[in-house]
Amino acid sequence: MSDHPADYTELCSLLKKAATLGSVSAFISWDQETYMPPSGANARAEQSSLMAELVHARTTDPRVGELLENCERDKSLLGDARAAANLREMRRDYDQATKLPSQLVSELAEVGSKAQHVWKDARAKNDFAMFRPWLEKMVALSRRKAECLGVPTGGEIYDALLDQYEPDAKASEIEAVFTPLRDKLAGLVSDLTGAGKSPDPAPRRIKVPEAKQHALGLAIIEAYGFDLDAGRLDVTTHPFCSGVAAGDTRLTTRYRESSWTDALFGTMHECGHGLYEQGLPKAEFFGQPLADSISLGIHESQSRMWENFVGRSHAFWEWALPVVSKTFGDPINSFSVDEVYASVNAVERSLIRVEADEATYNLHVMLRFELERAIISGDLAVADIPGEWNKRFEEYLGMPVPDDARGCLQDVHWSFGLMGYFPTYALGNLYAAQFWDKINEDIPDLDDRFRRGDFITLLDWLRTNIHSCGKQYKAGQLCERITGKPLEAAPLMRHLEGKLKPVYGL
Amino acid sequence: MSDHPADYTELCSLLKKAATLGSVSAFISWDQETYMPPSGANARAEQSSLMAELVHARTTDPRVGELLENCERDKSLLGDARAAANLREMRRDYDQATKLPSQLVSELAEVGSKAQHVWKDARAKNDFAMFRPWLEKMVALSRRKAECLGVPTGGEIYDALLDQYEPDAKASEIEAVFTPLRDKLAGLVSDLTGAGKSPDPAPRRIKVPEAKQHALGLAIIEAYGFDLDAGRLDVTTHPFCSGVAAGDTRLTTRYRESSWTDALFGTMHECGHGLYEQGLPKAEFFGQPLADSISLGIHESQSRMWENFVGRSHAFWEWALPVVSKTFGDPINSFSVDEVYASVNAVERSLIRVEADEATYNLHVMLRFELERAIISGDLAVADIPGEWNKRFEEYLGMPVPDDARGCLQDVHWSFGLMGYFPTYALGNLYAAQFWDKINEDIPDLDDRFRRGDFITLLDWLRTNIHSCGKQYKAGQLCERITGKPLEAAPLMRHLEGKLKPVYGL
Repeated sequence: MSDHPADYTELCSLLKKAATLGSVSAFISWDQETYMPPSGANARAEQSSLMAELVHARTTDPRVGELLENCERDKSLLGDARAAANLREMRRDYDQATKLPSQLVSELAEVGSKAQHVWKDARAKNDFAMFRPWLEKMVALSRRKAECLGVPTGGEIYDALLDQYEPDAKASEIEAVFTPLRDKLAGLVSDLTGAGKSPDPAPRRIKVPEAKQHALGLAIIEAYGFDLDAGRLDVTTHPFCSGVAAGDTRLTTRYRESSWTDALFGTMHECGHGLYEQGLPKAEFFGQPLADSISLGIHESQSRMWENFVGRSHAFWEWALPVVSKTFGDPINSFSVDEVYASVNAVERSLIRVEADEATYNLHVMLRFELERAIISGDLAVADIPGEWNKRFEEYLGMPVPDDARGCLQDVHWSFGLMGYFPTYALGNLYAAQFWDKINEDIPDLDDRFRRGDFITLLDWLRTNIHSCGKQYKAGQLCERITGKPLEAAPLMRHLEGKLKPVYGL
Repeated sequence: MSDHPADYTELCSLLKKAATLGSVSAFISWDQETYMPPSGANARAEQSSLMAELVHARTTDPRVGELLENCERDKSLLGDARAAANLREMRRDYDQATKLPSQLVSELAEVGSKAQHVWKDARAKNDFAMFRPWLEKMVALSRRKAECLGVPTGGEIYDALLDQYEPDAKASEIEAVFTPLRDKLAGLVSDLTGAGKSPDPAPRRIKVPEAKQHALGLAIIEAYGFDLDAGRLDVTTHPFCSGVAAGDTRLTTRYRESSWTDALFGTMHECGHGLYEQGLPKAEFFGQPLADSISLGIHESQSRMWENFVGRSHAFWEWALPVVSKTFGDPINSFSVDEVYASVNAVERSLIRVEADEATYNLHVMLRFELERAIISGDLAVADIPGEWNKRFEEYLGMPVPDDARGCLQDVHWSFGLMGYFPTYALGNLYAAQFWDKINEDIPDLDDRFRRGDFITLLDWLRTNIHSCGKQYKAGQLCERITGKPLEAAPLMRHLEGKLKPVYGL
């Protein structure tokens, strides 16, 4: 960067400080979910609010605006593809941030932190009424946020929120992809669950103590290439990944003795996010868009790829079963690779999104997308969420919801104002499938490599083609660059049908 | 506070924000010692440095100075004992903080964070040469700090550092108390170790897995009254307590299978600090001196009291042995209360300060006080520390130092610039002994209460007489208020002789 003009250097340095404060913020959120004692919640809310205020002040510093304008007039910078991409995204970030009054930013952080605490309690007590006033506050704040960000022409208020997580996406366009996909998926789920034959769940049902599950999780993510000197794996209520800073990426998971595969696939999922975070060029560009992920949809494509396309493949289990056997001992030894493979690819109507199988998962997401879109537009009142949730759940997933803890209280997202976030989960599956076809063209012996425990060839491909680019390309551009086509639903349906029908003897 | 003038309210609110940032800083330091992955060190150093800069900017905000001046002219405030104490200490803090240039503050934080990381490695590798250049940097920065703070009239440069931890203390005065005490202690240690009879170490030598030691530690600190909903106990290299914020006090300890009592007394020690932190009126006065501890000497009086005056008493063990037995099972059951009591009161010349017994401990502290005083004055070069350490260690403790890891590299303090801190450890023992006499006057059946597992009566006394006062009184004033006398060495010598001589049959 030494040949860049002084303004560009100053700009990057200011943004690096803002990002450093942001990384402290991210980190105290991680602690809030992992180790903070309950009575620390009020003080933590004040810390979070104040930190958010400081980050906001730095990202909206008028000096940043001035420097940006100067750089945008500099032809040498605009002629450098990476600097130009940096400036394009810095402009977007600055414009978005300056639209939000700092009072609102700090209120969102403070109320969010408290609401999240109440949510935890409400879920434990299966008490939606306890959570309701807090969710109402968060919805009102989110609407105010959307109004400040501005509704895009021809769009709806929800789009302003969605755009934060999946730039340029529109609810109506997502609906146009999701609705037919929903029908095809529902059809596939019907075919599979009606096939008369279904995989034996026994391999998933063996009881495994937490400590052994943790050891297995660590062994798998290490094989995937996750650098444990630059990251951690801890336990929390709702698994997540936080790419706190350069050299510090934190994964969380949760264990239940009776369902070791839930924890394992959850861990693989967060590890996929973590590998993306570790692959971003943060040491070089921290604070610049070049060190940032593209969108949540692309982020999710990485997590779903490692969880489903790798972790639920036959080749993976040919390598992994001996590893599991070494860690767990006896109980797993009575099962063959085919049995375990079939078992982890079982399709079952179930209640919890993060434990759902590959086929039904998208139905869980679509339900949330529809509800949050209606809450934000005002078509649905917060008080009516449980009823509407339960009704649609039965319609799409074909089973009743026994209680709110396993229904509309199951996810942390809404409690701290993540509205417009859910659809990115399904977009991630779509991107992953489309990338996967190209990866198999480029690495024709991928399965053989998995059988040998070589996952690094895949990781290298992802590092080169996705991670190292940071935010140089928009999600759509990246997809075109890699696959030569815009995003489409066909690869995902092909992948699911191609894998799942044989498992069910169809 | 509603009847206080607006300036006072604004002042308290500004200081609360500064303290909130300070609490974030304290918290990321806690993580650095407990859960941070090693590759996160560089990013963490940048975070720490930036946070320190922000805290410094807020505590030195000229608006704080202005408001302080206004309040200092307000007779109604000065007539209120608590507000007056608040203003007295706010003035002290403000003057101290404004003497330090923000560049120096941020350099101290950044170099300190890196030096601490190197220290950890150097200790593991027993390599003083690796640590030496970093310690030299920290000493140079500390001297610059002392010069900025200002050497008190008739004092020495070291006093400026000491004053940060023990306000108004002077090295020459400490020397005047320590030197005769050192001679008496050395005499007592000689008498005891030469008595021909010494307690059987067997009860301390049983092997106990980490998990059981952790369970015992939690049981004991809960009985002491530590609120685990408002705190935690974690594992680190060097045990410490961080009173992060209201409702959030974090203790750390370390376990070795072969020495369960080291961990237990370390945990009791940090718990004593933690009880003080939990007893300070933070919910009401956070950010004000009224919510702060008085000095490190007073803080240490609390940790040493719970560790030694309670935890090494016969009455405590009458209650505790069945608890230990319930947690550990068989190996402890062959020992009587008398045997365990004698064993944990053994006096042994040993290498590690934090594991030293009650009598030799002060000798370890005096050695450090003498060395750091000489390093800061320039009488001793950093390169000569190992030699000088080993020489004096043999002189005072009567045994050779086998390597630097168990010698001058054993403590974390110097690595991040805590110079002038060590003497407060011995002052803590002196204060604890003097308070203890008064406590036994006020609660004549204290031992009977311990036998029943009632430690809350003691805690209540400490809450009322010490914790709840915050910084209302200076250390010397508090001592006079409670005991009617200034600090003196006699109670500590009486306590040690009264307890230890019978253990050794003298």
